[in-house]
Amino acid sequence: MAGNSFGQVFRITTAGESHGPGYVVIIDGVPPGIPLSVDDLRIDLDRRRPGQSKIVTQRQEPDEPAILSGVFEGRTTGTSLAILIHNKDQRSRDYSEIKEKYRPGHADYGYDAKYGFRDYRGGGRSSARETTVRVAAGVVAKRLIAEAFGGRVVGYVIQVGDIRANIPSPEQITVDQVEKLPNGQPNVVRCPDYEAAERMVDLIEQVRSECDSIGGAAEIVATGVPAGLGEPVFDKIKADFGKALFSLPAVLGVEYGIGFGCTSMRGSQNNDPFIVQSSDQSSGESPSIATGTNRHGGMLGGITSGMPIVLRAAVKPTSSLPIEQKTVTKQGEPTTIRTKGRHDPCLLPRFVPMAEAMVAIVLADHWLRWRGQCGQLHAIT
Amino acid sequence: MAGNSFGQVFRITTAGESHGPGYVVIIDGVPPGIPLSVDDLRIDLDRRRPGQSKIVTQRQEPDEPAILSGVFEGRTTGTSLAILIHNKDQRSRDYSEIKEKYRPGHADYGYDAKYGFRDYRGGGRSSARETTVRVAAGVVAKRLIAEAFGGRVVGYVIQVGDIRANIPSPEQITVDQVEKLPNGQPNVVRCPDYEAAERMVDLIEQVRSECDSIGGAAEIVATGVPAGLGEPVFDKIKADFGKALFSLPAVLGVEYGIGFGCTSMRGSQNNDPFIVQSSDQSSGESPSIATGTNRHGGMLGGITSGMPIVLRAAVKPTSSLPIEQKTVTKQGEPTTIRTKGRHDPCLLPRFVPMAEAMVAIVLADHWLRWRGQCGQLHAIT
Amino acid sequence: MAGNSFGQVFRITTAGESHGPGYVVIIDGVPPGIPLSVDDLRIDLDRRRPGQSKIVTQRQEPDEPAILSGVFEGRTTGTSLAILIHNKDQRSRDYSEIKEKYRPGHADYGYDAKYGFRDYRGGGRSSARETTVRVAAGVVAKRLIAEAFGGRVVGYVIQVGDIRANIPSPEQITVDQVEKLPNGQPNVVRCPDYEAAERMVDLIEQVRSECDSIGGAAEIVATGVPAGLGEPVFDKIKADFGKALFSLPAVLGVEYGIGFGCTSMRGSQNNDPFIVQSSDQSSGESPSIATGTNRHGGMLGGITSGMPIVLRAAVKPTSSLPIEQKTVTKQGEPTTIRTKGRHDPCLLPRFVPMAEAMVAIVLADHWLRWRGQCGQLHAIT
Amino acid sequence: MAGNSFGQVFRITTAGESHGPGYVVIIDGVPPGIPLSVDDLRIDLDRRRPGQSKIVTQRQEPDEPAILSGVFEGRTTGTSLAILIHNKDQRSRDYSEIKEKYRPGHADYGYDAKYGFRDYRGGGRSSARETTVRVAAGVVAKRLIAEAFGGRVVGYVIQVGDIRANIPSPEQITVDQVEKLPNGQPNVVRCPDYEAAERMVDLIEQVRSECDSIGGAAEIVATGVPAGLGEPVFDKIKADFGKALFSLPAVLGVEYGIGFGCTSMRGSQNNDPFIVQSSDQSSGESPSIATGTNRHGGMLGGITSGMPIVLRAAVKPTSSLPIEQKTVTKQGEPTTIRTKGRHDPCLLPRFVPMAEAMVAIVLADHWLRWRGQCGQLHAIT
Repeated sequence: MAGNSFGQVFRITTAGESHGPGYVVIIDGVPPGIPLSVDDLRIDLDRRRPGQSKIVTQRQEPDEPAILSGVFEGRTTGTSLAILIHNKDQRSRDYSEIKEKYRPGHADYGYDAKYGFRDYRGGGRSSARETTVRVAAGVVAKRLIAEAFGGRVVGYVIQVGDIRANIPSPEQITVDQVEKLPNGQPNVVRCPDYEAAERMVDLIEQVRSECDSIGGAAEIVATGVPAGLGEPVFDKIKADFGKALFSLPAVLGVEYGIGFGCTSMRGSQNNDPFIVQSSDQSSGESPSIATGTNRHGGMLGGITSGMPIVLRAAVKPTSSLPIEQKTVTKQGEPTTIRTKGRHDPCLLPRFVPMAEAMVAIVLADHWLRWRGQCGQLHAIT
Repeated sequence: MAGNSFGQVFRITTAGESHGPGYVVIIDGVPPGIPLSVDDLRIDLDRRRPGQSKIVTQRQEPDEPAILSGVFEGRTTGTSLAILIHNKDQRSRDYSEIKEKYRPGHADYGYDAKYGFRDYRGGGRSSARETTVRVAAGVVAKRLIAEAFGGRVVGYVIQVGDIRANIPSPEQITVDQVEKLPNGQPNVVRCPDYEAAERMVDLIEQVRSECDSIGGAAEIVATGVPAGLGEPVFDKIKADFGKALFSLPAVLGVEYGIGFGCTSMRGSQNNDPFIVQSSDQSSGESPSIATGTNRHGGMLGGITSGMPIVLRAAVKPTSSLPIEQKTVTKQGEPTTIRTKGRHDPCLLPRFVPMAEAMVAIVLADHWLRWRGQCGQLHAIT
Repeated sequence: MAGNSFGQVFRITTAGESHGPGYVVIIDGVPPGIPLSVDDLRIDLDRRRPGQSKIVTQRQEPDEPAILSGVFEGRTTGTSLAILIHNKDQRSRDYSEIKEKYRPGHADYGYDAKYGFRDYRGGGRSSARETTVRVAAGVVAKRLIAEAFGGRVVGYVIQVGDIRANIPSPEQITVDQVEKLPNGQPNVVRCPDYEAAERMVDLIEQVRSECDSIGGAAEIVATGVPAGLGEPVFDKIKADFGKALFSLPAVLGVEYGIGFGCTSMRGSQNNDPFIVQSSDQSSGESPSIATGTNRHGGMLGGITSGMPIVLRAAVKPTSSLPIEQKTVTKQGEPTTIRTKGRHDPCLLPRFVPMAEAMVAIVLADHWLRWRGQCGQLHAIT
Repeated sequence: MAGNSFGQVFRITTAGESHGPGYVVIIDGVPPGIPLSVDDLRIDLDRRRPGQSKIVTQRQEPDEPAILSGVFEGRTTGTSLAILIHNKDQRSRDYSEIKEKYRPGHADYGYDAKYGFRDYRGGGRSSARETTVRVAAGVVAKRLIAEAFGGRVVGYVIQVGDIRANIPSPEQITVDQVEKLPNGQPNVVRCPDYEAAERMVDLIEQVRSECDSIGGAAEIVATGVPAGLGEPVFDKIKADFGKALFSLPAVLGVEYGIGFGCTSMRGSQNNDPFIVQSSDQSSGESPSIATGTNRHGGMLGGITSGMPIVLRAAVKPTSSLPIEQKTVTKQGEPTTIRTKGRHDPCLLPRFVPMAEAMVAIVLADHWLRWRGQCGQLHAIT
């Protein structure tokens, strides 16, 4: 199949292009009975929306979702759930330049090589606008994992350019800390280290004033995830997270736990010892097993360990720039190109809800897969 | 499904455990007519084999493959191709310790949580020994991509502990340079920067003498890949490479091109300008489009650009250590564990053929997917 | 996954319910460059549409399709193609009766058992209205197989109640013969044996006047299909046709070629001998192999033989009846039910385009699968 | 993918050819903890085995299975379960005739068209011998459905040539009745109407003495199946049964419940009214809903109704005949062929365990799919 689906049991299929009438996602495999409304969808869609703050693109797209099927009297029915988001009417524009020239950093040339021609009015199917419907599907996944096992997914920005945030306890970050500054104002850059956040905003504004863009990194943390999700071989849950995050535009690197830092570690330093979590001995509950540290990022052998899952993604600077760049025409003649339109000077603030959505979808899928095959959470005795 | 398959059109399914009778891979979707023999399989299996040099595990496993089906008179038939590798007879051993205790860094605890019990005689299905049959399948994929488009996949070690190799032109490294030193001796660490290789070997030997292990990184390069492979959305080829590499044991990070280095780049620095490759003008051939630099690692928007594909994976130090480590029993009582058996002090030398195999399988799959949907290589004019 | 997708390479995924806002189909894997317009879709949608003649349901649903994505400047782009069909505004109605009672012959009881509750306003996801978007996807498939190999799919009614048509040469029936009577009037029952057709119409009208319904059978014929499509084992093309036709509402039996007639045959009678088709010897073309008879219905060992494919489906009488039927309530109390609304007295006339669509989709999928794996049509020499 | 897998969650993948070293099946998605031994596999393999009685082929193939993986200490582990069955050593034979000629009724010509060449030593991948490993996988599926919901699958022969059995209560037939005559002797034809069985045996012997073969039909019944299995649209459970049975060699027709008999029925006759099953009122259990008749064969709208599932398949007479048949050579020259080797004069007796296996696999898969998505059996209140 041509790659417009993701997931096995909780499975999303999307369609739509940036300059067409709109986008649709069909979510297959949603369990019946989950409460869901259009308002639920809006929350994350508004976090992904263009024009939400001064440091993102100033395009205005309302991204108003409609539920086409799969919800009856406020609850999911268990049948395929479709969400539709129409595009705002596109202004008639002059596309002659990007029709004939390949934009550096974009898939234009690959598209012509693959399909023989392309919708030249923008990114077409490659547009990051496709992630709107992923974010909508992510809301359904978040609902499901919250109901199923109290799972929670929170993402935030940890790096913009050379500015790195200091987040000592990733598993304690809340969406509120990500979305709001201590003074109640919006945390536009979505970095919960507020000192770093301020400098990140300054850097992004400076970069924009120079008609340039800047890269960065985000961290996504999932808590409340039970041990035992993921498959031992190809569908290791780390592999599905890897695919999920690399399937997002502009991601050039993914790591979890200690990540690339493991390359210079010794085994005796790196292994996280198992421990018994302190619990009220008088309660009579069975002891809870954990690890004393979390260099393994919540996954061992591709299976969750019950510790917080900690993932990071590297995001390149926006390729579309309002300055002249060297390129070639379709005919292979050297030329220059200057991308028009309003683009994000830094993709990271809007990347956060996209990444959360993909992580939630992987968790929803693996939990349903586990329930299908292994049925009930086995007591470890 | 429970995750023992990988790929869509060129699709592998594996079975087997470290302490069972053996392993099998069924490869579905192999085109008919590709020459293949057991000897072809042995080449890469010997590169992955334990006991191949002084710096890897000294276990002896011959890894002798048998082709069960799908080959007739020396050519693939197009029907499902099965390869069988029997395990060497296992010595009767005392597993009582690992039966009751969770090995740090391993999936033991996750297995019990997932399935309710586990084969306690080793890694079971999680054992890295499962990669033998992936390597065998990788040989078939390498054959296919070589025939289909002259594709070639070469991997090598670029880092062990703090020792980093200097590889200025990844796309020019040959398997010979990886496998042999200039003096004709085996390049046991598989690093084509021979000065670094020598120091890596010394470090690995030192680490082993200290009953410890060490992490590192490998780079995998694919050349000859045409522009146009990969899908625009979920099955971006970078996403499938990401899944493929993260599905290998011990991988904690994956990046391509400039990778995590993109986080501190500006767009104006990072974009690779398209150029026309110098060609003999008198030949009358149409101009060949390329990029002047390759920070994008051969993939833009998830689709190959025709430039070399450059991937890197971070591999953690071996978790099994012959020294005492803290852990808990299944009953949740603190204890210590010392892993017996002969383990690799550094996984990297044997990781190289595994990673090459997975990269080749992704390329084979995407090329067949492209041919199915898009048919013939469209001339870009 | 929850079963809302069909096909491997040419893959459709649908969503929608009879009493929701509408239906959508996403078609993945469509080759780029196929001419397609909304007008193309209307042709078959009008053949499936309620209210098209006096012998079908008199509900009025315009079934106006919109192409949401995947078509640019009149040609398919190769990216996911979505088609949207809105439902007519539903009148506010009293559903209290079917909310509490199980309609005989319908899935109501199974839905409650499966999902725990159901959309009680009609068939919900089970409604035959779901086939609108299948018919739309079938138009794309028909286009593809016509371009790819000159393939053509024609269906027609061969039985209504005890009236059986006599169709001596199924492979010669044209859509025109199915759709129009010799006098140019619409052939409302879609039976190309016009004498039988007249009696079928009479029977259907009589059955309706008695507030009853009647079963029947349809035959679907595909011509121009090259030898070599289909897979040897599970995905035999006959198995995929079987699944395709049984996935349509009300189908209780499927057969091909001689079908159930084979049960009383001897091998010496049943085998179709291979022959060389008479061709102009002076043309220098290689001889064309065929079979002298076609009891095998164009498929041997699950692979097409190059002969016309001939399939038949048995369709039960409509379950919804305006007369009282015995049933039980959700609470398990005996009651009676009388289904309101305007239903088809015989499903067959509108079944024809649905069945054609599914057959065309299977052919499109298998042809792309064949091209992906086996590449070019091998000359048999 | 090339069609060597079947099922979604309980998923089997097979490899092997009639004249290669053997066959293997990998079963993915088996729940952990199911008791399984090689002896369990032998029971059904012996029912499928050649040479089991005087009315089947006299080839001797022991079909001895080996479990390669997925079972530990007598229980399934939840990881991929592989079963291996080696072929008996093949005698060196002269294949020159079938190498150059197309056998009527076989896939030889389609193979050459599809793949460009073929393994000419027999059916290759098309051989009905592939069903050995399906039967082995079916044993695992039967175990699973018995443990999960007390499900039971029994098949038997209902027709050979013009001899039709009279089976008034399909749901009451036991395996014992199928396998043994009242006198304790083997019921070689597997028809539980013993009077018909005797005549069937006579007919098969007569047909063989005439160097001919004969067709027939089998009925497969599943009891104990809960209401609620199957998906509303493409993966209707009737559609998956249809695909499963059509994927078996020689099947030309499939029907369930009243099947093709529905074509001449009226809705008022055909609908099965829902009833409350008589139960001990004093027990306090909720009333059990059923239908008074079972013309619907246990499936409504593609979802199980809780009534017995009743399927039938039409099986053509064996194509390989020891008498001369007309055909052509690969070069397109008319010739004759006489198939050597010992073939079944009637496929039905050995078809029964194959069909049971496929039906059990569909039930296992749909039950796991239901559990994954819908979780716990919803009380219908």
